[in-house]
Amino acid sequence: MKQFQEYYAAHHERFVSEWKDFLRFKSISADPGYREECLACAAWVTRHLEGLGFKAELWDSATLPLVFGELPGNPKKPTVLFYGHYDVQPPDPLDHWQSPPFEPTLRDGRMYARGAQDNKGQVFYFLKALEALGAAGADLPTIKVLIEGEEESGSEAMHAGLDGWSDALKADVLMVCDTGVIHPGVPTVTMGLRGIAHFDVKIFGPKVDLHSGVYGGVVLNPLQALVDVVASLHAADGSVAIPGFYDGVREPNPEDRKLANEAPIDTVEMSATLGVQLTGGEHGLPIMERRGFRPTLEINGIGGGYQGEGNKTVIPAEGFAKISMRLVDGQDPQRTLDLVARHIEGLAPEGTRIEVQHRVAGGPALQLSVKSDVVQRARKALLESFGREPVYMWEGASIPIVAKLAKVSGSEPLLVGFGEEGDLIHAPNESFSLRQLESGYRYVTAFLGAA
Amino acid sequence: MKQFQEYYAAHHERFVSEWKDFLRFKSISADPGYREECLACAAWVTRHLEGLGFKAELWDSATLPLVFGELPGNPKKPTVLFYGHYDVQPPDPLDHWQSPPFEPTLRDGRMYARGAQDNKGQVFYFLKALEALGAAGADLPTIKVLIEGEEESGSEAMHAGLDGWSDALKADVLMVCDTGVIHPGVPTVTMGLRGIAHFDVKIFGPKVDLHSGVYGGVVLNPLQALVDVVASLHAADGSVAIPGFYDGVREPNPEDRKLANEAPIDTVEMSATLGVQLTGGEHGLPIMERRGFRPTLEINGIGGGYQGEGNKTVIPAEGFAKISMRLVDGQDPQRTLDLVARHIEGLAPEGTRIEVQHRVAGGPALQLSVKSDVVQRARKALLESFGREPVYMWEGASIPIVAKLAKVSGSEPLLVGFGEEGDLIHAPNESFSLRQLESGYRYVTAFLGAA
Repeated sequence: MKQFQEYYAAHHERFVSEWKDFLRFKSISADPGYREECLACAAWVTRHLEGLGFKAELWDSATLPLVFGELPGNPKKPTVLFYGHYDVQPPDPLDHWQSPPFEPTLRDGRMYARGAQDNKGQVFYFLKALEALGAAGADLPTIKVLIEGEEESGSEAMHAGLDGWSDALKADVLMVCDTGVIHPGVPTVTMGLRGIAHFDVKIFGPKVDLHSGVYGGVVLNPLQALVDVVASLHAADGSVAIPGFYDGVREPNPEDRKLANEAPIDTVEMSATLGVQLTGGEHGLPIMERRGFRPTLEINGIGGGYQGEGNKTVIPAEGFAKISMRLVDGQDPQRTLDLVARHIEGLAPEGTRIEVQHRVAGGPALQLSVKSDVVQRARKALLESFGREPVYMWEGASIPIVAKLAKVSGSEPLLVGFGEEGDLIHAPNESFSLRQLESGYRYVTAFLGAA
Repeated sequence: MKQFQEYYAAHHERFVSEWKDFLRFKSISADPGYREECLACAAWVTRHLEGLGFKAELWDSATLPLVFGELPGNPKKPTVLFYGHYDVQPPDPLDHWQSPPFEPTLRDGRMYARGAQDNKGQVFYFLKALEALGAAGADLPTIKVLIEGEEESGSEAMHAGLDGWSDALKADVLMVCDTGVIHPGVPTVTMGLRGIAHFDVKIFGPKVDLHSGVYGGVVLNPLQALVDVVASLHAADGSVAIPGFYDGVREPNPEDRKLANEAPIDTVEMSATLGVQLTGGEHGLPIMERRGFRPTLEINGIGGGYQGEGNKTVIPAEGFAKISMRLVDGQDPQRTLDLVARHIEGLAPEGTRIEVQHRVAGGPALQLSVKSDVVQRARKALLESFGREPVYMWEGASIPIVAKLAKVSGSEPLLVGFGEEGDLIHAPNESFSLRQLESGYRYVTAFLGAA
C-alpha cells in the first residue's frame, strides 16, 4: 500500500495535468452539436489506455463510439471488466458557474469542471491506479475496460450493440466507479441503483396563441390543463397517483432495510448543503428508504407561453413538461413507461390534446447482495485502505446500462465510488476533491492488487 | 356619406402606403430594447396629426411619451376625446409568422403586421376619417386626440400623468376604437371591458439544480410544488378557487344579460377558426357571459428546469408562472391582486418558498349603459353607415386606462371598433382587412359628421 501512496505523491502534478486534459473535452452526449468533442474525448481515452499497455480500440456505432481496451493478465484470477463513461451532462445554466464548465479550475483542493466527478474523475483514478499497479509489476487479472459515450443520454450504442459484444466483454467482476460515499471519509459500497425511464408531455390547445382577454373564459388554457395533469400525477402524501405505478415493487428484505437505515447519513448537513428541507418523496418513510427502495416521478423541466421580460397576456397554444421516473426492484421500465404514458394521454381535458413523446425506457434497477463474494472482497480492500468497515448504501441514482452489462458479460457488478454530496454532479459548479481522487486510487490499487 | 366613400376610393393607395409606414415601427413597449422605435413612432403620429391641422405635441414621461393633439371646432358641439395607442405586443414566437411582423404585407385583402389591427389599424382609419371630414369642410366639434405608447404594457405614463392633464383632456365623449365586431359585417358597440391585473409567481427550492436520482424522493421538486400551487387556483368546474376572489362581483342586470346572450355569435365558426373546442371558463355558463361578465385567471407563461433538446435529469432549483386576471364590474384590481398574491404566497409547501413578483393592478372593468345618449348616437351612425342595427357586446378584453381616462376627462366612453375574430391580435400573423379599415373610416365619418 505504501508504495502506491509514494507513486501517487511522486506523479501528482502530472496526474492533475492529465485530468484537466480529460475534462476540457465538451463531451455532451445529449446535444448533437458536440459530436466532434465527444469523438476527440473518446480518442484521448483510447490513447491513454494504450499508454497503459492496453490493446485499445474504438467501437463504432450509429451514434457515439465506445472505447474498449484489454490488458491480458493472470488467467487464474477472476477477469475484471471496468465500465465508465466519457460523456457528461449539459452544463446549463451557464451563468451559474463560477469558472467555465470546460476550463477545469483547481480551487481549495477541488477540481471544478463539468464531469470533474461524474464520471471523468472516477474513470481517471481507475486509470492512474492501473498505471501504478503496472509500474509495481503487480500480478493482475485480465482487465477489460469499456468506456461509453452516452451514459448521460440513454446509452443508445450500448443498448444496440451489447448482445453482439458478449464474447469480448466476458468477465467475472463488473467494476463500476460511478457512485459516491455516504459521508466524506466513509467508504461506501453501493448495493442498489434505481432504474430510469423518461419522456416529454406535450399539450396542445388552440392553433395559435390567443388574446387572454378575448378568449379568457372561452378557450381552456393549455397551461392550465398542463398543471392540472402534471399535478394529478402525485397524491397529497407525496406518492405517485398513477394506477398500477407501484405494481411489482419489491419491499426490501429486513436485513437490507436495517443496513440502509443504519447508514450514518447526516441529514442536517445535507439539508444545509442543499439549502432546503428534505421534504421530498413519500411522507412517513425514512430518507434512505425513500431514496433507495421507492420509485419517484420528477418534473425535470416545464415550459410554455411567454417567458420573457414584462408581461404578455396570451393563452398559449401549447406547453410541455419533461418527466423522468426512478424505478426500483420489481418494476419493468418499459411496462411502467407504457402505463404512465397511457395514463397521461388519457387525462387530456376536452379542448386539449396530449402527446407523450420521446419515450425512453433507460434500464431497470439493480440490487446486490451483501453476502456476495465480490462485495466481500471489496469490503476487505476498503477496510485495508481506510481502516474502517464500509457502509452499505442503496443509492437513488441510475446507471441504466449496468444491469444489462452484467448480464451480457456474465459478471457480478461491484459499485464502489468516491463521489460526495457537495460535488454537485449534474448541476452548475460540479467538482471533485483531490482527496477523493486519491481515495479512489487507493481503493482500486487495493482491490486489483489483491485480486 | 357618398362623398366620403369617393374620397376613400380616390386616396386608397396613399392610405395603404401611409398605414404601412405606421406599421413598420417596432414600437414594442414591453421591451426596453425598442425604446427608440417607440419614440420614432410617436414622432410619426405627431407629424401626422399636424398634417391634419392639429396642434400636436409629445407629452414626455419617465417611460414613453404620449402624443396629444387638439383641433378646435364648433364650441356648441360636445367635445370629442379620441384615445388610442401606438405601441404593440411583442411579436414572438417569431418563427410562426408567414411574413415578418414589422414588414407589413398585403395578402388577399388583409394587411399582415404586428399592430395591423391592435391598435395602429384602428387609429389609422380614425385619422383618415378626420382627413376626409376636414377636406369636406364638415362642421366638427372640438377634437382632442391622445395616443399613448404603453397600452400593451401597463400604461405607466398615463397612470402617472393623468390627474395633472385633466384640463387639457376635458371632453364630453371619450371615443375609443380598440374593440371588435361580433361577426364580420355586423356593427358592434362594446358595452363593457374587463379590468386586468397581473403578476409573476416565483418558486424556490434547493440552492442549485440537483441530480434527480440522488435527491429524488429526498428533496421536494419546486416544479412539483409549482404545478400543485398553480393547479389549485382553479376548481374542477373551471371557477377560480381563491377565497374572496369573486367578492363584490356584480351580476349583470337582466336586460344586459339578455342583450349579451342574443348577440349572434357563431361558436361553430369561432371554434373552427381557433382549432379548438370552447371549453374555457366556468362550466354551465353561456360563452358570452363567461367572457363578458365573469372574471378569469390565466397562466400566460410557465417555465423552469431543463427546456432543451434531449433529457436532463435534474430537480431544478426554481420555477415560475406568469399569471394575469381579467376582472369584472365590482372587483377592485388592487384588492384582488393583494388577495390573490397573499393566497399564493401562503401555499408554499414545506421545502419551498414562493414570491409573487412584478405585481401590476392594471385597471378596473368598465360597464356602459345602452340607454346613454352617446351610445344612442353611435347606434344611429352605425345604422346609417351599415343599414342595420348594431349588436351590443360585453367584450372580455381590457383597455386598462379607459375607465380612469373617462373619469379624469369628465367624458362618457364610447367603444366601437372593427376588429374581427380572425385578426389574431397578440398572436403571430396578426392582420386587419382593408374592408374593416374602410368600415371604421365610414363609422367615424358618420359619427363625427353628425356630431
